[in-house]
Amino acid sequence: MHSELPSQSADHLEQAWFAQLRFGEQGLLAAIAQDVHTGRVLMLAWMNEDALRETLTTGYACYWSRSRGRLWRKGEASGHRQKLHRLQLDCDGDALLLQVEQTGVACHTGRMSCFFYQWDGAGWQIAEDVVVDPEKVYR
Amino acid sequence: MHSELPSQSADHLEQAWFAQLRFGEQGLLAAIAQDVHTGRVLMLAWMNEDALRETLTTGYACYWSRSRGRLWRKGEASGHRQKLHRLQLDCDGDALLLQVEQTGVACHTGRMSCFFYQWDGAGWQIAEDVVVDPEKVYR
Repeated sequence: MHSELPSQSADHLEQAWFAQLRFGEQGLLAAIAQDVHTGRVLMLAWMNEDALRETLTTGYACYWSRSRGRLWRKGEASGHRQKLHRLQLDCDGDALLLQVEQTGVACHTGRMSCFFYQWDGAGWQIAEDVVVDPEKVYR
Repeated sequence: MHSELPSQSADHLEQAWFAQLRFGEQGLLAAIAQDVHTGRVLMLAWMNEDALRETLTTGYACYWSRSRGRLWRKGEASGHRQKLHRLQLDCDGDALLLQVEQTGVACHTGRMSCFFYQWDGAGWQIAEDVVVDPEKVYR
């Protein structure tokens, strides 16, 4: 458990991974990042084929940014990268779970997790403090 | 922490929840279910407005089944329901995290989590045992 995946060339991945992946209409899989040490769910993002390939090749999470329409090497601006420890796939092949070691914080707001709003029965309350000043991260 | 959300009428939820939710083109939010006790990520599903409303009203997870095109009261066939303990929303309002108490198992294959395939560098390996016989659950 918690062992690191070795970096690997993309060449030999072709056959094995495609057999079970069910990319959606936009060619994307949902990708959940979970902190391998604390178990916290950090974020939900998306991966296309290239993003998944790069993630497996480099050992660091790379997503597909739907808003920017390009590969998003997590931490490329902030330095807050996600080192991949384990990659899991769900029963119907359309969602990935990445167990990662998070450098810094996952959320662009400076919070550890993007899931910082909590429903209290009447509204969404911010339930988590900012731990890194986003202005210092993205300056 | 880990306190249960009270059941509540749908009426007073209207204003507060819609302000922050960003339903996608198909009117859906991604919804991650996490075991509130173990921290395991159990599954990824989808919620439309009705599913979210029902989840908050009943206190049990209700999703939108894209394959069946109808509300999916998790556990309606198996009895393996998910009691909601906490509901969290991410920074951009398009993904939910449900902290749940899982009765039985989350996966229709009889495994606790749907994320039972693990990448070993060459292929997807089944990394989790069946703990409930699915034939007995869905008979």
